[in-house]
Amino acid sequence: MSNKIRVVVWNEFRHEKTKAHVKAIYPDGLHATIKSFLDKNDDMEVTLAALDDPDQGLPDELLENTDVLIWWGHAAHGEVKDELVAKIQDRVYLGKMGLIALHSAHMSKPFRNIVGTNGFLSWGRNQKEVVWNLLPQHPICAGLPDHFVLETEELYSEPFYVPQPDALIFGSWFEDGYIFRSGLCYLRGAGKVFYFQPGHEECPSYYNEYVQKIITNGVRWAAPANIGFEIVCCPQLKTKATEE
Amino acid sequence: MSNKIRVVVWNEFRHEKTKAHVKAIYPDGLHATIKSFLDKNDDMEVTLAALDDPDQGLPDELLENTDVLIWWGHAAHGEVKDELVAKIQDRVYLGKMGLIALHSAHMSKPFRNIVGTNGFLSWGRNQKEVVWNLLPQHPICAGLPDHFVLETEELYSEPFYVPQPDALIFGSWFEDGYIFRSGLCYLRGAGKVFYFQPGHEECPSYYNEYVQKIITNGVRWAAPANIGFEIVCCPQLKTKATEE
Amino acid sequence: MSNKIRVVVWNEFRHEKTKAHVKAIYPDGLHATIKSFLDKNDDMEVTLAALDDPDQGLPDELLENTDVLIWWGHAAHGEVKDELVAKIQDRVYLGKMGLIALHSAHMSKPFRNIVGTNGFLSWGRNQKEVVWNLLPQHPICAGLPDHFVLETEELYSEPFYVPQPDALIFGSWFEDGYIFRSGLCYLRGAGKVFYFQPGHEECPSYYNEYVQKIITNGVRWAAPANIGFEIVCCPQLKTKATEE
Amino acid sequence: MSNKIRVVVWNEFRHEKTKAHVKAIYPDGLHATIKSFLDKNDDMEVTLAALDDPDQGLPDELLENTDVLIWWGHAAHGEVKDELVAKIQDRVYLGKMGLIALHSAHMSKPFRNIVGTNGFLSWGRNQKEVVWNLLPQHPICAGLPDHFVLETEELYSEPFYVPQPDALIFGSWFEDGYIFRSGLCYLRGAGKVFYFQPGHEECPSYYNEYVQKIITNGVRWAAPANIGFEIVCCPQLKTKATEE
Repeated sequence: MSNKIRVVVWNEFRHEKTKAHVKAIYPDGLHATIKSFLDKNDDMEVTLAALDDPDQGLPDELLENTDVLIWWGHAAHGEVKDELVAKIQDRVYLGKMGLIALHSAHMSKPFRNIVGTNGFLSWGRNQKEVVWNLLPQHPICAGLPDHFVLETEELYSEPFYVPQPDALIFGSWFEDGYIFRSGLCYLRGAGKVFYFQPGHEECPSYYNEYVQKIITNGVRWAAPANIGFEIVCCPQLKTKATEE
Repeated sequence: MSNKIRVVVWNEFRHEKTKAHVKAIYPDGLHATIKSFLDKNDDMEVTLAALDDPDQGLPDELLENTDVLIWWGHAAHGEVKDELVAKIQDRVYLGKMGLIALHSAHMSKPFRNIVGTNGFLSWGRNQKEVVWNLLPQHPICAGLPDHFVLETEELYSEPFYVPQPDALIFGSWFEDGYIFRSGLCYLRGAGKVFYFQPGHEECPSYYNEYVQKIITNGVRWAAPANIGFEIVCCPQLKTKATEE
Repeated sequence: MSNKIRVVVWNEFRHEKTKAHVKAIYPDGLHATIKSFLDKNDDMEVTLAALDDPDQGLPDELLENTDVLIWWGHAAHGEVKDELVAKIQDRVYLGKMGLIALHSAHMSKPFRNIVGTNGFLSWGRNQKEVVWNLLPQHPICAGLPDHFVLETEELYSEPFYVPQPDALIFGSWFEDGYIFRSGLCYLRGAGKVFYFQPGHEECPSYYNEYVQKIITNGVRWAAPANIGFEIVCCPQLKTKATEE
Repeated sequence: MSNKIRVVVWNEFRHEKTKAHVKAIYPDGLHATIKSFLDKNDDMEVTLAALDDPDQGLPDELLENTDVLIWWGHAAHGEVKDELVAKIQDRVYLGKMGLIALHSAHMSKPFRNIVGTNGFLSWGRNQKEVVWNLLPQHPICAGLPDHFVLETEELYSEPFYVPQPDALIFGSWFEDGYIFRSGLCYLRGAGKVFYFQPGHEECPSYYNEYVQKIITNGVRWAAPANIGFEIVCCPQLKTKATEE
C-alpha cells in the first residue's frame, strides 16, 4: 500500500472546450496543468476528474480513496448534485479528506456548505494583482517571498462574505483600487479547507511558480491528519470519563 | 414604527405535549418560558412559533419581520423544510437577522448549514453542570459571575465538531468527567450566530436567572447591525474604487 | 456621578510644534482635533494629554479615571516610561480601560506589550489609500460604506507582524501596490484594544468623516464591559465549584 | 551540518533540589525527564539549561542555536533577567525559534511578554484531571485519543486571562468542578508558541505517555518554518510593488 497523498483535481472543464482563448492557455483543461506540477512530487498521486465524466467525476470508489480534493468550478455550480456534495462534506468533516477550493469555487456547493458562507464577493476585469504573504510561518507559505505579482488575474474584491478564517495567509492588491483576502485556511469538523483565489480560466496563473508552490504546499497541509480515534455521530456516554 | 428588537422563539414543541415530566416543567412549551423572561425587557417584542404551526411557524411575512430567531429543536430536525432553512440562512448571511441556537439545535439544519458543521458531539445522562465564563468582556457575559451551577442538565461532551468560534464565551464542567464548549459566537456572512448549550427539555434551566440573562444579552448581541450599505450577490465592478 | 465614557486622547505632540507643515494641518495638535469630533457625542467626556505634560500626561488620578485611552506616538516611543506602560497594561488586562492605538502607535510600548508584537511593518511615501470594510456587522463598522478613499496617507504595508486579531475589520489598498490590515480588534485580559492605521501627522485624515465615525464607534466598543465579578491575580481555590 | 531540531529544555530547577517529595519524582530535574523522552526521536537534539547555570542557562551562543525553547518556571519568574527575556522574545517574533511554555510558565516573563497576557488564573489542590482533545486534526494532536486521565495534577482553573488562541487544542476537567483551557497555540510575529498545562512538580505527568506525545508533537509544530525572506524592522519602501 502506498503512503502517497491521493489527490483528485476536479474541474468543471467546459470553458476549455468551448472558448478558444481559454483552450489556448489550458489545452487539456486547467486541471491537467495542476496535475502536471503536482506530479513532480514523489509524495503525491494525482487523478483528474471532470463534471461531465460518469458520476460527475467522483464515483464512490474514487471519492473514498481521495485524501485531498482540489475543486475548480464556475458556470455550472448548480449542476453538481446535492448527493455528491453531501458525500464530500461528510468526508471532510470526518477528517478523511481535505478540500482545496480554487478561484470561482468560492461559489461552489462544496465550499459554501462546508465552510458556511454564501460566497458573495465583487468582481471585475482582468488586471494586475499582487499577492501578499501575511503569515510566513504557516506551512502553506513555506519558501515563499513576501509578495509576488500576477500580471493578469480576474478582479475579486471585498467585501467577501466568508467567515473569519482560522488562518488568513494571503491578501491581494488589485490595480483598480480593490483588495481581497485571497488565501484562507479553515478547520471544519475534523478536516481542513484551503481557499485560494488566483486561477481565472483566461489567465495563466497555474503556470506561475509561486501559485504552483502554494497549491503544492496546500495539498500537504490539507491532507488528513493522523487522528487517533474514530469519529462517529453522537455516541451516548454510559460511563464516567475518569473510569476508563 | 417600533425600534424594538423583534424576536421569534421557535420551538419544535412536541416533547411538552407528549411527555408528562416535560410538560410538568414547561406546561406551555419551553418557548413560552423564554418569551416570559424576554418580555420583561422594554426593547424586545417577542413572538412564539412552533413546528406544527402553519408554514412550520415561520410564514414569509413573519420571517421578514424577525430580527433575532431563537431556535429549539430536537427530535424532528429532519421535518424542517429545506426551503425554510434556505430562507433563514439567506437572512442571517445578509445581516438582516441573528440566530440563537439552543441546546439540541446543535443538530438543527439552520445551525449546521449557517455555521458549517455536522453538529456531532457526545451525550449522556442528566447531571450537575458548572458553566464557566471564559470571556467576561463579551457583551453576552455582561453582569455574569465567573461561574454558576445548574443542578441538573443533560450531559453534552467534547469532542464537539464545530468550527473554532469567533468568540468562545462559555465552557462547561459535567459531573462524570466531561467538558463542553457551551457558549459560542459565530460571525457568518454579515450576520451573527450564538450557540448556547443548557436547555434540555427535562431540566428547568430556562428558569435559571443566569441562563435568562445570557439569552437576554444574546438577543441584543445577535440583533442586526447598522450596516451602511446594501449587500448583494456578486456585483460586477466597472469603475476604479479610487474614482468614486 | 456621570455615566459618560471618560476618554483621554494622549498625543506625543511634538511634530505639531516643530514642523510647520504639520502645524498647518493640526495647529493645536492632532489630539485636539480628535477631541473636537468626540466632543459632539453626549456620552463622552474627553481630556487631552501629551508626553511633555507632567507625569507624561497620565498622572495616576487621571489614569484611574480613564475608560478609553487613545494613543498617538511616533518618534519618542522610547521616552515613555516603563512604569507608566505597566500601569496602562494592567488597567487594560483588568478590564478597567480600553486602548485605541492610532497609526504609528503600532510601535508604541503600550500597543506592543499589551497585544504581544514587535510592531514591525514596512512604510513609504504618502499616497492614495482605499479603506475597505471587511466585517460590516462589527460595532466599529456601524453606518460605514463598504469602502472610502483617503486622498493622501502614509504608506503602511504588509507583512505586519501582529497577531491574528479577534476581528479583522478593515483592510487597505495603497496606490503603489501595497496592502495593509488597517483595522484590528484584540481582546486582551478582560479588556479590549483597537488598532487603526490612518492618521499620519502630515495628512488630514482626522478631519475625514469616516475616520471620525470609526474612532467614535471605537470608543464605544473599547469602553469597559460590565464585568460581574472582580478580577484578581491567581486566587487559591479551597472549595468545590459545585458547592457554592 | 545537522538537520535536527535543536531543542533546549530550560528549567528553573530548584524545587527538585530543595523538596524531597519533588526530588523523589524527578531526581535529575523535570527537564531531564523531558529530555529523556525527546531523545528517543532521531530528528531532535536536546540540551538542558537551568536558571542557576551561567548566563541563566542561555548564553547567546546557545540561544542563537536553539530552534525550540521549552520553558518551565514557577517560583523564580522575577529573577529571570529582562535582557534575556527580550532576546527570547525577539527570536520568537523573527521566526527563528518556537516557545513551549509548560504549566506554571503561564506566569513566566517569556510567555506573558510574547503572547500578551498577565497570565492570571486560579489554582488549587492536586486532583484528578481529564484532558480532552478539542481539535484532532491539529499536528500536536496526532495519534492521541479523544481524552486521557491524569490521576493527579495541580488544579488550574478558568477564568484564564489569555488571548483567544489561534488554535484551542486541549481543554481539561478537574474533579472539584473546574475547567481549564489546557492546550493553546499562538502565532506571534513570525513564530509559534504552545502553552500546555500539565506538569506540576509534585505530579508525575512528564512520565505519562500522552503528555510525552503532546510535547514531542509540540516540538515539531513549534520548530521554525521555512520562511522565504528575511524579516527586518520597518524597511522604507522606495519602489512600487508591481515593478519588482
